[in-house]
Amino acid sequence: MIVRPHPHPLSLLFILRGSIIHAIIGELVVVLGAAALITGFYHFRPMLFSGISLAPFTLLGLALSIFLGFRNNACYQRWWEARQQWGRLIAETRSFMRDLRAVLPDRDDRTRRLGRRIVGFAHALRCQLRGERVEAAQPWLPAGEWLGLAGLRGKPSEILNLQAQELADALRAGEITDILYRVFSERLATMGNIQAACERLQSTPTPFAYTLLLHRTAWLFCLLTPIGIVSTLGWLTPLATVVLAYAFFGLDALGQELQEPFERTANAVPLDALVRIIEISVLEALGETEIPEPLLPQDFVLL
Amino acid sequence: MIVRPHPHPLSLLFILRGSIIHAIIGELVVVLGAAALITGFYHFRPMLFSGISLAPFTLLGLALSIFLGFRNNACYQRWWEARQQWGRLIAETRSFMRDLRAVLPDRDDRTRRLGRRIVGFAHALRCQLRGERVEAAQPWLPAGEWLGLAGLRGKPSEILNLQAQELADALRAGEITDILYRVFSERLATMGNIQAACERLQSTPTPFAYTLLLHRTAWLFCLLTPIGIVSTLGWLTPLATVVLAYAFFGLDALGQELQEPFERTANAVPLDALVRIIEISVLEALGETEIPEPLLPQDFVLL
Amino acid sequence: MIVRPHPHPLSLLFILRGSIIHAIIGELVVVLGAAALITGFYHFRPMLFSGISLAPFTLLGLALSIFLGFRNNACYQRWWEARQQWGRLIAETRSFMRDLRAVLPDRDDRTRRLGRRIVGFAHALRCQLRGERVEAAQPWLPAGEWLGLAGLRGKPSEILNLQAQELADALRAGEITDILYRVFSERLATMGNIQAACERLQSTPTPFAYTLLLHRTAWLFCLLTPIGIVSTLGWLTPLATVVLAYAFFGLDALGQELQEPFERTANAVPLDALVRIIEISVLEALGETEIPEPLLPQDFVLL
Amino acid sequence: MIVRPHPHPLSLLFILRGSIIHAIIGELVVVLGAAALITGFYHFRPMLFSGISLAPFTLLGLALSIFLGFRNNACYQRWWEARQQWGRLIAETRSFMRDLRAVLPDRDDRTRRLGRRIVGFAHALRCQLRGERVEAAQPWLPAGEWLGLAGLRGKPSEILNLQAQELADALRAGEITDILYRVFSERLATMGNIQAACERLQSTPTPFAYTLLLHRTAWLFCLLTPIGIVSTLGWLTPLATVVLAYAFFGLDALGQELQEPFERTANAVPLDALVRIIEISVLEALGETEIPEPLLPQDFVLL
Amino acid sequence: MIVRPHPHPLSLLFILRGSIIHAIIGELVVVLGAAALITGFYHFRPMLFSGISLAPFTLLGLALSIFLGFRNNACYQRWWEARQQWGRLIAETRSFMRDLRAVLPDRDDRTRRLGRRIVGFAHALRCQLRGERVEAAQPWLPAGEWLGLAGLRGKPSEILNLQAQELADALRAGEITDILYRVFSERLATMGNIQAACERLQSTPTPFAYTLLLHRTAWLFCLLTPIGIVSTLGWLTPLATVVLAYAFFGLDALGQELQEPFERTANAVPLDALVRIIEISVLEALGETEIPEPLLPQDFVLL
Repeated sequence: MIVRPHPHPLSLLFILRGSIIHAIIGELVVVLGAAALITGFYHFRPMLFSGISLAPFTLLGLALSIFLGFRNNACYQRWWEARQQWGRLIAETRSFMRDLRAVLPDRDDRTRRLGRRIVGFAHALRCQLRGERVEAAQPWLPAGEWLGLAGLRGKPSEILNLQAQELADALRAGEITDILYRVFSERLATMGNIQAACERLQSTPTPFAYTLLLHRTAWLFCLLTPIGIVSTLGWLTPLATVVLAYAFFGLDALGQELQEPFERTANAVPLDALVRIIEISVLEALGETEIPEPLLPQDFVLL
Repeated sequence: MIVRPHPHPLSLLFILRGSIIHAIIGELVVVLGAAALITGFYHFRPMLFSGISLAPFTLLGLALSIFLGFRNNACYQRWWEARQQWGRLIAETRSFMRDLRAVLPDRDDRTRRLGRRIVGFAHALRCQLRGERVEAAQPWLPAGEWLGLAGLRGKPSEILNLQAQELADALRAGEITDILYRVFSERLATMGNIQAACERLQSTPTPFAYTLLLHRTAWLFCLLTPIGIVSTLGWLTPLATVVLAYAFFGLDALGQELQEPFERTANAVPLDALVRIIEISVLEALGETEIPEPLLPQDFVLL
Repeated sequence: MIVRPHPHPLSLLFILRGSIIHAIIGELVVVLGAAALITGFYHFRPMLFSGISLAPFTLLGLALSIFLGFRNNACYQRWWEARQQWGRLIAETRSFMRDLRAVLPDRDDRTRRLGRRIVGFAHALRCQLRGERVEAAQPWLPAGEWLGLAGLRGKPSEILNLQAQELADALRAGEITDILYRVFSERLATMGNIQAACERLQSTPTPFAYTLLLHRTAWLFCLLTPIGIVSTLGWLTPLATVVLAYAFFGLDALGQELQEPFERTANAVPLDALVRIIEISVLEALGETEIPEPLLPQDFVLL
Repeated sequence: MIVRPHPHPLSLLFILRGSIIHAIIGELVVVLGAAALITGFYHFRPMLFSGISLAPFTLLGLALSIFLGFRNNACYQRWWEARQQWGRLIAETRSFMRDLRAVLPDRDDRTRRLGRRIVGFAHALRCQLRGERVEAAQPWLPAGEWLGLAGLRGKPSEILNLQAQELADALRAGEITDILYRVFSERLATMGNIQAACERLQSTPTPFAYTLLLHRTAWLFCLLTPIGIVSTLGWLTPLATVVLAYAFFGLDALGQELQEPFERTANAVPLDALVRIIEISVLEALGETEIPEPLLPQDFVLL
Repeated sequence: MIVRPHPHPLSLLFILRGSIIHAIIGELVVVLGAAALITGFYHFRPMLFSGISLAPFTLLGLALSIFLGFRNNACYQRWWEARQQWGRLIAETRSFMRDLRAVLPDRDDRTRRLGRRIVGFAHALRCQLRGERVEAAQPWLPAGEWLGLAGLRGKPSEILNLQAQELADALRAGEITDILYRVFSERLATMGNIQAACERLQSTPTPFAYTLLLHRTAWLFCLLTPIGIVSTLGWLTPLATVVLAYAFFGLDALGQELQEPFERTANAVPLDALVRIIEISVLEALGETEIPEPLLPQDFVLL
């Protein structure tokens, strides 16, 4: 996520970091070249273009705007849902710790294990979503448990299972009643729902055919438009074409980035920073003294 | 569902698999033919077209864009809701197994039956939604139960009923309290809600009159547009018409595919793979040793 | 609801059943007449129209498209919410029966009364929403209860009250605990919410002023447009006007139909068929032997 | 709320009641005058307007359409949420009465007080939202309670508090268990949520800057457009301008009305009628014999 | 939040307070200057602009409208969600106090502490969201507790923890049952969810690349458009350009303001006034006699 104070309106024009230009510079160069070619050709054979109007290209461009608007909306919703699910996870973690500290005897071993295991869950979920190795979860679990997870695929959900078993032990030992067991069980179920929602967002992109259809229509539009405008704009044709291509390809590329909200990219959800917030919440609740610092943006980017 | 790494922007132009072109090639050929006819006719009788402007066709095209945008949004929402419901089912399954293992004695017969029956439910629901025979659920149910389901219509919901009866046996036998019975009963109710939502999506397409109205307007637009643009675009007319037809019919066909999210098509929700995830979750939770592999995309397509 | 396999793309052009043309044929004829008149007048006094451009009409048409898109979205949401509520009712019914069979002694009188009364509720709600007489609920209630409902307005909610009283009897008789009473009570509350949502959809159409504003703007647009296009399109004017009128009045009429989702029309929610599904679910759950068949579409229409 | 059977399509053109014309007649007259002035001026100095094209005005008009579409959507959502909250209140009232009758001894004093106090809550909420004096709630509360509410600001939420205290009395007296207390407490909490949502809708209009921006842009558009179209439309200019102003100002005014859904206006939510439905539900549930009639629309308007 | 009675339609044209003009006056001046320069240049070299049509600029402008519409929708949703969360907090506070008064002995020390601590939570959350020092929460907590919060980062959530511990004390002391503990615990969890949602809205702006892309496209559009319209509009060019810039930059700036709903700006959510409502609710519920007045708008602005 890009974090920067809202800059002065004019300086917005010269910011590169966070701009989508990096992602579409190739497209812009190709379009500029094609438009320059057509403009050159026009100066040799202006008659060929004499009667061509822009109207059909306008129509295509407007249809493309509407479809890009629709797809960007879908991609933005995905990104925002990803952020909501992680915000929800922070809240659920805090609620779990709150009830834990209130109901179980303060800061004994069981409380500590139950608290640290949630951090392990958050680390395991983060690593799974980013396609990284899940070793980060290891220090937060009791020594033996990590080994038991070795062969299993769904490490995050297995950690929730261990959590439930420890709570069931407390239930059988009479430390909590069945009502209180239910309170904790509902929290774990919500965490499981969050996990499933994140996996859904990760494994199910917007339909690939949309990406294809829109990308191709954008290319067709940008390559054909110079034919339509060269007779009226003349030497301004390449400039106008590139401005249009910047708007269309830029929005297309932004949608593409946002629809993969768990990647380690500048516009994605900052999972590292969010997991750190969970660490701090749990360690403070357990009364630990060594609390790590929150992650700060590097070069305006929080990962 | 089509699963492929995001390809290089330029290679996007040449991908066929996952493209909607297969579905609309017929329409494109007809439109191309009509546009070519009109262009030919124009060369014999250019006077007939002399004063015709594109403006009314532009208007029709923009109205069509807006309406197509609206319908695609509705279809996309249906597809996404279908995926959400199945993601929810995975989460509910895991939560059910988590509470089961925590509360019931570990890995006895009842736990195994309760766990395997959920997989049976998922298989039965999948087959019903895809209009296939539900035999796939049979190996997951105790031998006698499958026979008892023979004459009944609603097999998935009947499997949930069997699940509830086994839980009620546990309640009467004093293995779980009424609070814990309620925990499980809510999970089953959520699974029932998921089933009803899937049936709703399957049995209720978007209103047929929308399909008709948009399809017809798209045809009218694509067949009439060449009349409007031939006098300004000349020999470019068939090309421009086909580009427009590609955008409009393509979006129309995509909406059509997405609105039937449970079909066995490339852009549908990959039910087979999701049921396999449920199988793995349950078998791991039951401590089984033979765990099947997750399904992998064949030719970039996951079914 | 119109149920038909997705027809061949070309045959879509010739389907009448389910088309919105029936509803707007009057408007189309009037618009065609007006456009023909203006075209004729143009041939006598072409000078009057010489300088008139289409631009202001285009503007009006696009504004109209956007507003129609907005209203159709609202109407579609209403229709879809109506369908969702009834899908939810089916799920709640099944969950109610599931807990009932699991918790109460199997298939005794109380279970049967509680089950059949839900079907009575569904029939009473269906009839109220369609403005029909509620006699259809009678055979599903115990003999005396129907008489007691005679003078009361809110029959569906009164049936839910009878249901609650029978459950409270079971609570007092010690057949269920207060936790289990709460499980059933929540189901009844959800059914009450569904009822209230349906009544809201029935009694609160989209604001009448929208209907007026859009309908009038559509008329103004269709009657004025020929003035703008006759000088460029000539003899094609009536055809182009009717095509535009088809798209605009068609979408307007579709929105109008969808916004009354409980009427007995081809595009409405098929309440009869959904109530039949509830009947089947309950009767199967009660172990009855005479189970009615699901309703099938007649002439592609399910009511 | 305007309640009328859907009129014949053609008669829709001549309906005044419910039309938004009343609210914008002033604007239309001003716009008509300005357009007539410009048209007159054009006949004296046609040269001044000779080269002016409509294109920049078209652009402004389309941007305005899109922004108006966005704002109307937001206003419509507010209105619909207001209606949903009150529909929810009706359902919660009925559920509260259902559990009350089922669990408490039938129709004794406590049941009657608890039932009538809900009606008092609905009246107090209605009056607060409409900025009217809350005396309407008085007859529904026990004599002494009304006096105790005298100095307090938040009468509706204080009435809910009295309700909770009476339920706590029943809990302490052993008439209900803590599980059943929780059932009722959740209902009261939902009613409190409904109250807070209504207060939010009442106290937080859409941002004032939107209203200003859109209203001013609409004025600029309507006053400048005649300059652009007078050279092509001539004597049709005032007519075309008024038609456009009707569509834009009409939609603007409709959004304005809808965004204040609790006012006593024709397009607002009919709070009086909804409170009457609550009265009838409660009185029927209490077995009273004098039940008031539902409110009927006066002159097609339900308040 | 700007609070003013809806002014007379014409006076809307002259209101400055609440207008977005303050924020964009710089942009308007720059655009006006550029347009004047181009117009002047045109009078010296009209030939250079002779063939240039507005069409490509129209296309850019419409695409910009659609993208601005999409972004404004996202920003408005954020602002509205912020307001919803605080409305929900008010409702949860009242529900908490309602159950507290009903279940605990009236107005003893524990009740007072539990009530006042919620106000402390609201103050701490408000200050954190606005980036102000959290001393405002101090007077609402027992003397010792404030010191204990000194070193901790997450003061709002720590206050909720203290609340939970006091409730757990009451549970252990037998003043409430575990069912009632759960009622209160769920309220605290909801407050924690509200806090997490507010933190999410505060810490996660809409993706910065959208801001950049739209702002730059708006600049490109406003600076290039005069080139396209000067040959048809002549001396009207600067006026028309400024009107367009007003609409586009105005909407852009409004979106920017709305997306930071917790700032101390005129269009933000009035946190001070909402916390005061919570204070009043709690103090009235505790039976205090000195109740502060609600905050009133200053100069039409409520902060």
